Formats: sequence, structure tokens, C-alpha cells
Amino acid sequence: MEYYGSIEAGGTKFVCAVADEDLQIVERISLPTTLPEETLAQVFAFFDAYQLKALGVGSFGPIDVNRQSSTYGYITSTPKLGWKNVDFLGALKKRYDIPIAWTTDVNAAAYGEMHLGAGKNTQSCIYLTVGTGVGGGAVVNGDVLQGFSHPEMGHISVARHPDDTLESTCPYHSHCLEGLAAGPALEKRTGVKGQLLEGTHDVWAIEAFYLAQALMNYTLILSPEKIILGGGVMKQQHLFPKIRESLVKQLGGYVELPDLEEYIVGCDLGDNSGTMGCLLLAKEQESLK
Amino acid sequence: MEYYGSIEAGGTKFVCAVADEDLQIVERISLPTTLPEETLAQVFAFFDAYQLKALGVGSFGPIDVNRQSSTYGYITSTPKLGWKNVDFLGALKKRYDIPIAWTTDVNAAAYGEMHLGAGKNTQSCIYLTVGTGVGGGAVVNGDVLQGFSHPEMGHISVARHPDDTLESTCPYHSHCLEGLAAGPALEKRTGVKGQLLEGTHDVWAIEAFYLAQALMNYTLILSPEKIILGGGVMKQQHLFPKIRESLVKQLGGYVELPDLEEYIVGCDLGDNSGTMGCLLLAKEQESLK
Repeated sequence: MEYYGSIEAGGTKFVCAVADEDLQIVERISLPTTLPEETLAQVFAFFDAYQLKALGVGSFGPIDVNRQSSTYGYITSTPKLGWKNVDFLGALKKRYDIPIAWTTDVNAAAYGEMHLGAGKNTQSCIYLTVGTGVGGGAVVNGDVLQGFSHPEMGHISVARHPDDTLESTCPYHSHCLEGLAAGPALEKRTGVKGQLLEGTHDVWAIEAFYLAQALMNYTLILSPEKIILGGGVMKQQHLFPKIRESLVKQLGGYVELPDLEEYIVGCDLGDNSGTMGCLLLAKEQESLK
Repeated sequence: MEYYGSIEAGGTKFVCAVADEDLQIVERISLPTTLPEETLAQVFAFFDAYQLKALGVGSFGPIDVNRQSSTYGYITSTPKLGWKNVDFLGALKKRYDIPIAWTTDVNAAAYGEMHLGAGKNTQSCIYLTVGTGVGGGAVVNGDVLQGFSHPEMGHISVARHPDDTLESTCPYHSHCLEGLAAGPALEKRTGVKGQLLEGTHDVWAIEAFYLAQALMNYTLILSPEKIILGGGVMKQQHLFPKIRESLVKQLGGYVELPDLEEYIVGCDLGDNSGTMGCLLLAKEQESLK
């Protein structure tokens, strides 16, 4: 029997899975992300036990998704030790002579959620993960969003909250979303890790303000049918109504939004968004063969 | 002989054109936008002289582009006298029983430029017009960008320039791009109309800062292969290098950009971007029949 394979390659762990024709997962493992040779050896050991017909990869980035580029398939400028300028897709293609889909981890998650999760019955969505960093992927007209490169929507510029003087935690930007609203910013503001903060803490108003501002800009630029929020920070469920409320306030009635309870939602697939997206992309890639 | 028709419906004028199979324009007129019945009567009088096989419409907005909506094809919440909640597409369909493509004026311009102008040989681009207002459209993976609605990227939130205290000219937002960088903001800052301002005026640094910030956010969210700038304000050619320079500074090296001279460019089709886009969309719509 032939299987579809999935690699959700994160900066801290790799989740690999194989699934049958109906995308039912047969086996799934999680590996720590160490050095490329070491991690890839474990990835190969896992997949070598199966006859694969296609593979889908959703990788941490930045990655090169431009098919015209000489470094297509590479992880490019990551600070992650050993992974800079690694020909990830090339290594996989060398090992497995099968169709391989290649995109970012968050694009894969957006694709998975759109087809099988919170975005079912839509043709477009954004998936934003808010945790140690902020990353976003999107699907537009049914296809993963890529252009000259892939989205990096966690680093958009945001206007500061009038009461906020925090120095951005982003080494690149003095006022980007990630630098002012990811986990490290929450901890820097309060001295407490985000997951341990009470829902009543004042800091959540500032957090909601930044996330809502970003969602407003995503909405005005992409007009997605659904915005799906995941990641560690979004485990704080009380953030959802705060974000919706702040979005309405900041937008000032300029655009008529869909029902906000339906528009800004959590993940349906939990930790499986990326894996299911990779499997779907693998299946699609195979059908293009 | 049968023709393709184009309506570029703007808030101040309507440009109507008919073209042959090769999209060579046969006749073209410009009408002032007055009241709907009056303007539409002139539009009908123009097209009635031709046998049309399809029509493409790029309209000022906001418009309803959601096919599931009961007001699909309407101009919705415009302040333009008489045009609020007008069933524009419905009126056209009643008159002409042919395929009609329906999108925003700026989406049509983006589509025209991508196929025949500055975006040739790409599959994605943004078209931004900076004039009395700021409006943007986009093409992604070859298709016009629409989701629950259409882009309204002129109203994204921007962080203020440290030296800027101007009260936003946008009635909805205290710090959106249009409110701080459209023609009226330029005039409010200087007391002089934008087109009369010298290229050496200090105000252009602020103008370039805001436009570059917006382009940075569009880039991080959409990753288009090309950004095409048009409209009255962009007739000031010296703005292009200023915007490119400010973009590089604000992005802080986080993402590797395409060659900026190729990435941020003016229109190739001049005043014809929208018309050519509408004709292309008409032809495409006909082929879907």
C-alpha cells in the first residue's frame, strides 16, 4: 500500500506523519529539531518504513518558495543553529523520488484548517499563530498564498497603543506585531509568562489592541472569509472577545465585517492543522503529477 | 461583429469602451458621474450601438462582490450622492443579457497592469492609486483578490512618523494611510495642492514614510511579485526613490526583497489600466460561459 507523508518542520520540533488514501493518519512521530543531518536522519528512518506516493512539507522559515530561484526549497536566513541556507527540499527529493509540496508551516496550517477545520466551506482564510513569535499563512481563492516569497505577516508595522512604552522584543523592528505582542513581549511587560497570566490582567487590553489592529490590516488587505487564531497565547480564550471588540472600535465602521463570532475563531484541528494541511498538499501535488 | 465592453466606473467619471476580439479599443468615451439614472442612461446609449458579447465592470466602492449575498453587484455604503445601495450590476444585467465581470476599479487596474502592463510575466501584483484617496487592488495566483469582500487597503492603520502631528483627514480613522498620505493630507500639511508642491519640499519625506510603511505591510502580508503605483500624487516621480529608500529602512533587512527598481514601479498603461483590466475580465468571463 502507498501512503501520503507529512513533515511539519518547526524550529523546536518536527512532526512527521503518514496517512492512507483517505488521509487517515497511520503513524505520527514528534522529533526535537537538532542539527539538520541528525534530524533529517530521523525523518528518513521514519519514512523509509513506508512506500510513499507524495510528501507535503510545511517548514519554519524564512524559506525560499520561488520556483525560479536557485535556492528554491532552502531554509534561508533563519537564526536557528545549523539550518541557515540548508537545502531542505533538495535533501528530501534526493531521498524520495516522489512529488513533494513545499510551503511554510503556517501556510500548511491555513490550508489544513480551510479544508478540514475552522475554514470549511470557504475559499480563503488566514491562519495566525501567536506564541514565541507571530506567524501567519493564508489561502486565497483556494490556493496557498505565495508571491515573490511567502507571507511574514507577524512583522507588519503597528501603531503603538497610546499607553505603551515597551521596547520591542523584535531585533529588526521597533514597532512590529511580533515585537509588541508575541509571548516574549507579554512576559517583558509583566514579568510573568503569558500562560500563567490571569485573564483579568490589564496587559490583555494592550495585547488585544495590537492583535486587533493586525487583524484589521489583514482584513483590509486580504478580505479573507475567516481568520483562524492559534498558538500558545491564544489558549487564553478571553482574548477572542477582547480582540473582536477592539477590531470593531479601530475599524470605526468603515467596512462591514462578517459576523465576528464566525469571522475570528480558534483552530478546529488543534495540533493537527499543519499535518493535515501537509497531507492535503501532498495529495494535491500527486494529482498534478 | 461582436465586441467586449468595459466600464471603469469612478466617483467623478465613467470611462466606457468597446474593443474587438484582440482587445483593440474601437471606441471610448468619458462621462461625468452624476446621478445613477442619468449616468446609466448615457452608458446604455453608448453600448446600445454595439453587439456586445461580454462586459467587464470595475467600479468605485465599496461594492458587494460576494456572490452569496442578496446585494451582490450593489454599490453599498458610498457617500457619493445617489449611489448608495444602487444595484449597478443588476441594472446592467437587465439591459444586457451577457456575461458580466464585476469587481472594483482598482482590482481591474491591477488585472490590466498584470497582464498587459507593468506586471507582465508575473502572477501576482498590487495596484495602489494615491490621489484624492488611496485605493488598492491585487491579483494573487493570477486571479483578482476577493474574499468576503474586496481589499480596502488604503485604510490600513499606520504608525505615525515621529514628527507628524497632522490630524487625519479620514473621518473614520485617526491614523490610516489615506488619512495621513492622500492628496488632502498633503494639502493640509502644506497649504498647497500636491501637484503644485516642489520635489524639494520637506513634506515628501513624511509622504514617502507612510507610503513605504504601507508597502512594507502589503509585502509582508501578500508577498506580491510587483507593486504598481498610480494616481495623481505618484505623478511626482521623485517619490519612487524616496519610497524605496524608506521601505528598506523600515523593513530593517528582515525579508529579502526583489530588486526594488523592478518591485516598486509606476503604471505602464497610464490611464488605460482599468479599461484594459475590465476588457480582459470581460473576455475571461465570456470564456467561462
